[in-house]
Amino acid sequence: MTTPPTTGARPDEARRHNRTALLRRLHVDGPATRASLAAELGLNRSTIKALVDGLAEAGAVAERLPAQRSGAGRPSLLVLPRPHAAVVMAIDIRVEQVAMAFVGLGGDILGRHSWNLHRRSREPGEVITHIADTAKLLADELDVTAVGVGVSVPGVVRRSDGLVHEAPNLHWTGVALGERLSAVLRVPVGVGNDAELGALAEHVRGAARGSSDVVYVSADVGVGGGVISSGAPLRGAGGYVGELGHMVVRPGGRQCYCGCRGCWETEVGEAALCRALALPEDAPRGAVVAELRSLAASPEAVEHRLGEFTEWLATGLVTVVNVLGPEQVVLGDLFTALPEQVVDRVREVVRVRSLVSRAVGGTRIVSSPLGRDAKLVGAAELAFEPVLGVI
Amino acid sequence: MTTPPTTGARPDEARRHNRTALLRRLHVDGPATRASLAAELGLNRSTIKALVDGLAEAGAVAERLPAQRSGAGRPSLLVLPRPHAAVVMAIDIRVEQVAMAFVGLGGDILGRHSWNLHRRSREPGEVITHIADTAKLLADELDVTAVGVGVSVPGVVRRSDGLVHEAPNLHWTGVALGERLSAVLRVPVGVGNDAELGALAEHVRGAARGSSDVVYVSADVGVGGGVISSGAPLRGAGGYVGELGHMVVRPGGRQCYCGCRGCWETEVGEAALCRALALPEDAPRGAVVAELRSLAASPEAVEHRLGEFTEWLATGLVTVVNVLGPEQVVLGDLFTALPEQVVDRVREVVRVRSLVSRAVGGTRIVSSPLGRDAKLVGAAELAFEPVLGVI
Repeated sequence: MTTPPTTGARPDEARRHNRTALLRRLHVDGPATRASLAAELGLNRSTIKALVDGLAEAGAVAERLPAQRSGAGRPSLLVLPRPHAAVVMAIDIRVEQVAMAFVGLGGDILGRHSWNLHRRSREPGEVITHIADTAKLLADELDVTAVGVGVSVPGVVRRSDGLVHEAPNLHWTGVALGERLSAVLRVPVGVGNDAELGALAEHVRGAARGSSDVVYVSADVGVGGGVISSGAPLRGAGGYVGELGHMVVRPGGRQCYCGCRGCWETEVGEAALCRALALPEDAPRGAVVAELRSLAASPEAVEHRLGEFTEWLATGLVTVVNVLGPEQVVLGDLFTALPEQVVDRVREVVRVRSLVSRAVGGTRIVSSPLGRDAKLVGAAELAFEPVLGVI
Repeated sequence: MTTPPTTGARPDEARRHNRTALLRRLHVDGPATRASLAAELGLNRSTIKALVDGLAEAGAVAERLPAQRSGAGRPSLLVLPRPHAAVVMAIDIRVEQVAMAFVGLGGDILGRHSWNLHRRSREPGEVITHIADTAKLLADELDVTAVGVGVSVPGVVRRSDGLVHEAPNLHWTGVALGERLSAVLRVPVGVGNDAELGALAEHVRGAARGSSDVVYVSADVGVGGGVISSGAPLRGAGGYVGELGHMVVRPGGRQCYCGCRGCWETEVGEAALCRALALPEDAPRGAVVAELRSLAASPEAVEHRLGEFTEWLATGLVTVVNVLGPEQVVLGDLFTALPEQVVDRVREVVRVRSLVSRAVGGTRIVSSPLGRDAKLVGAAELAFEPVLGVI
């Protein structure tokens, strides 16, 4: 890595700022010509040249001819991020499974591995040991070293130090996950709530690019929500993220482990979906998805099986939209397997019943294009955040 | 008003910034000695002296001996804001009443006036005319000129231009209130949602001073909520504020004008309280408050009359706390008249049932000390925001 010549603190600071902005642009939006980078970042061409040359010398970017020429003149070179210039490890701890990936600069997944969890292997010490072993294997196999780690956890997480206050579906309470993982992995570790990281992923690489007010709602075993408000993640006191799955949507409904009855999670989580589909509550995910697919062919069957489920999903979303006023809601994870007819009905209910949706010009409701990978992608972005400033 | 000597853009900018910070400090927290102002703002004494001298010359502050001497030496002079240095007009448009006040620098109400609304006088043109007439009368009587106006409206408001998109309880739709008022009052006018301004008032001058994550929930005819998140107002897409009163708390409950059934507003708004108290739904406010006072003496009567009302209030608050994770909830307006037994029960329910309240160390639930004036105070602060930078 080169160091720009020192000419006093201010120019140095500006150069560092511009370098990070350029790298972030390439990391998030992919290859671009010097000319379009200059236009997008509002920098002149000689500044862009100096920055690109510096980053190329540091091995962070490369330049190549574009695949298709545009116009008659000499073709502009494309600047592209070099994935191996900075590699992070992303870890998505779910209730039934842990997924891990090494992700390179630019967001490409270089390699991945996952394993299922059961009652015993869900214990924090077991999970941490398995992560450490897998990290070593994958790193050797790919011949990479991670410079940072991001972890997604389905629970209430303190971002400052990665303490998992409560992850009920994992039966974790007060687990110092950030500290314990950084002790064994020997790199900085960031830990985030899974829905918050899903929202981040959709905002950076998914359906919500360019939207500044977005809610990501997803179902796995539990239901969670992540909120981007005015372009930044919404957090409550102490940095804790809200738990949209524990809105009370059906007072007097089923008992939830959290102490309430009729939480959104008990009405539209995976168990509720299984009940609606007349499957056992612990049916494997593949069976649930297959049943949803076969159902989708018959509108009557969808209405019969999923009519009530759809109403609870829509009712919760009306509250979400009225409280937060997003321009977009992204339905993630298991919700992406719902028949289009269900999503259409939800759109219709929100359109008709939400006063705030009307005010903001109609909240768009879409399925996540990142699907099951959203939280893994978000964990990688969490890990990249501090890294982009120091390449 | 004096202009500091020009010595290049940067020092000038810093001086302007410090001057505004000092004025804001005096406006919000009241008189203080030069020494404590220097300590609080992190400026040295000679900078404070220059700033105070400049503001005194401009007529914005005065200095006087403190009422009580502390220590033996020469007493420190207190710097205090001069109310007439900048006067704003605050207007609180409610469903049943309009309240107006002229408020001086430092937050003192210099004079006020209010009138009741009925079906005909609630029409936007009537309200605007009455406001303009009253503004002239009050200004003459007090011999002041307002340099800015802040307006609170119980509805969905676009902050950028003061368009009232929908104020259902007033039967207003698409009223360009900001433009129309600034045309007749001939000063800048800011318009805000009433609950948002209540939250601002509690944050600046009420129960939530020093809290960065606060939800203000209040009942008048309707129910609204304002949110301060990480120290700043939470807004959705297009600058619109969420409508907490339209969370669906009781699916299949009473029809609400918004298109839903069982909104929080239909369960804990003024009409619901009247039903619980066996009063007519349009009982005058005085009768409602008197009934609540007489009830408070008997725990059995409170439980009998208000048990169900209390459950709906608590259920909605569990959702609010789980979604937003505030450290404090302030109950405002008509809710301040609720018997302490009701508030205690609400605290207990939130403590036991909200997973996020547990995570953030227990969300405090308090009654608004500003009571019925919160929205008027918030409207004044809205008007002061742009003014403090240019005195």
